[in-house]
Amino acid sequence: MPVKRLPANPLITPADVTPTRPDLEILCAFNPGAVRFGRETLLLVRVGEMPHQEPGYAGYVVYDPDSGDVRIGRIRHGDPDLVLGDNRGFLYRGRPVLTSLSHIRVARSTDGVHFKVDPKPALFPSTPYETYGCEDARVTYLDGRYYVNYSAVSPRGISTWLAVTDDFRQFEKIGMIFCPSNKDICIFPEKVRGAYVCRHRPDAAPFGSPSMWTAWSPDLVCWGRHELTLAPVPGTWEGGRLGCGAPPVRTREGWLEIYHAADEQGRYCLGSMLSDLERPERILARSSRPVLEPEAPYERAGLYGNCVFCCGVVTDPKGGMTIYYGAADSICAGATTTVEEMIAAAKE
Amino acid sequence: MPVKRLPANPLITPADVTPTRPDLEILCAFNPGAVRFGRETLLLVRVGEMPHQEPGYAGYVVYDPDSGDVRIGRIRHGDPDLVLGDNRGFLYRGRPVLTSLSHIRVARSTDGVHFKVDPKPALFPSTPYETYGCEDARVTYLDGRYYVNYSAVSPRGISTWLAVTDDFRQFEKIGMIFCPSNKDICIFPEKVRGAYVCRHRPDAAPFGSPSMWTAWSPDLVCWGRHELTLAPVPGTWEGGRLGCGAPPVRTREGWLEIYHAADEQGRYCLGSMLSDLERPERILARSSRPVLEPEAPYERAGLYGNCVFCCGVVTDPKGGMTIYYGAADSICAGATTTVEEMIAAAKE
Repeated sequence: MPVKRLPANPLITPADVTPTRPDLEILCAFNPGAVRFGRETLLLVRVGEMPHQEPGYAGYVVYDPDSGDVRIGRIRHGDPDLVLGDNRGFLYRGRPVLTSLSHIRVARSTDGVHFKVDPKPALFPSTPYETYGCEDARVTYLDGRYYVNYSAVSPRGISTWLAVTDDFRQFEKIGMIFCPSNKDICIFPEKVRGAYVCRHRPDAAPFGSPSMWTAWSPDLVCWGRHELTLAPVPGTWEGGRLGCGAPPVRTREGWLEIYHAADEQGRYCLGSMLSDLERPERILARSSRPVLEPEAPYERAGLYGNCVFCCGVVTDPKGGMTIYYGAADSICAGATTTVEEMIAAAKE
Repeated sequence: MPVKRLPANPLITPADVTPTRPDLEILCAFNPGAVRFGRETLLLVRVGEMPHQEPGYAGYVVYDPDSGDVRIGRIRHGDPDLVLGDNRGFLYRGRPVLTSLSHIRVARSTDGVHFKVDPKPALFPSTPYETYGCEDARVTYLDGRYYVNYSAVSPRGISTWLAVTDDFRQFEKIGMIFCPSNKDICIFPEKVRGAYVCRHRPDAAPFGSPSMWTAWSPDLVCWGRHELTLAPVPGTWEGGRLGCGAPPVRTREGWLEIYHAADEQGRYCLGSMLSDLERPERILARSSRPVLEPEAPYERAGLYGNCVFCCGVVTDPKGGMTIYYGAADSICAGATTTVEEMIAAAKE
């Protein structure tokens, strides 16, 4: 494969993260957004916290917008309204409930390999749209500021919110930019043809499969001119669903994007694609084979096994690239490659 | 009930509509948008066309963007990939297929009761986003032009498109304004606090129920600042799902809206609500009981029985109001009331 896993993988595990409360423990630390900030590489890690397990009960934790605090609950096994699921959640009265509550935490490194996780959250649920968590942050440096978008999950659906920071210490939530059900938003690092542009991944059920779309905006908040960009190809490694991964990187051959796709069995891989610099809705090339497949033990087994999922890459001035990714919905990992290799992979 | 059905109901039935091709027949003519235009009342009727039925086959009809024409097909009963559904469609290879292809047709009347249906469609599928049809038009008079939005249905999902007309003869499709899955968009007839505003109804599955949201726009094309406005109330007539109906009417007490809601059994009724003129995201009052329930024979039986669904109302200078609505997903009907009665119903 055209990427090399970092020997230090996994880079961040639940053991590296301190819980926000003594009655919670870290279930997972994965799907990091990534950005170069000064001399440091920063990861914006999705941290899932769960209550200590109690035998015979399904535990859950939610943010309560009325009290402004986190609320822990448990449902007895055998409750007729309870349908146990996988490790990530269960059904109660026909509705999904998540085992863990996610927030976004910054991890900092001077070498891009060894990270120290901040003791406090960067983005934590604070609205009725986030009662089930803040997930999967992506960072775009744009107009001199760092914009972070993330999935907000609640009984109101999965929406996408925008926040902004100048220092990765203070974050300001700007508001919702995509209504349910939409996630996997990647904002381009510059305006194209006079407008902001992004990829998004609306849920088009029951007619359509989860696919990558492009949208445009005058102000980063209101989005329109939606267009389907990339759809699953049945029977292939990207036969089930796909969406963007890392925000696009400008190269002389076009916008380079590391994206995710799952086959019909739900095995998540990463691919590479190139789109036109002036018309990013036009795909120039995409990898026929994955650039990264779940093969390492920490990618094959975990909360959701056989899964690699990218929310950010970091490039250096010499054309080197590190792909940061979540593995098995459990931990953070990294793989090195170059911009040229990813362009070649997209064209292959 | 505070409304009176028109004695002439149903106002438009499939028999009143000519098919676009001899090998198609009219299955349904319903869910009309409504507008006063000069001395006429116009309905923008959703017309569903299907192939002539052939015993032993499930027929379907789609728009083919490659040929630019309509394509008719049939699947033999007993095909292992076929799962027959209700009269509206079936499942083939796990995906829904619609029995009929919808387009939007103008019907014209000088008395608001007796309508003549145009011989040709006003808005017909013409893009890959409309291969399964154009449905449920709403009209808003804004900035001196008539804006029409409608649901575009295809394997890419259910999106919402905007078109514009000045004469209800020529329509220009502007483009997609809401990506899948979203429908039931009502655009307000004026800017509020400097921005265009609308209601929409995103699909928030699996976490949320179909609900009414509010969004804002600088240009009618890009929408953001999404906010949940009205959600189903379990156990009531609006316990299952709800969304907007007719574009809002300005009254001295607030924005008046006739909206739709279904209970957990899928019985669709109409309600009345009032929102703040300057802050339409703030609901001032909503009817505790429906203002119109499916009780007439043409509302109780049809392609989808026990259903009344509104896409437009027409008011007169004296405060009279006619609610036009689709009944049982089959025909167009009307009911008269007054603005004051609907305000009173909302406050009840």
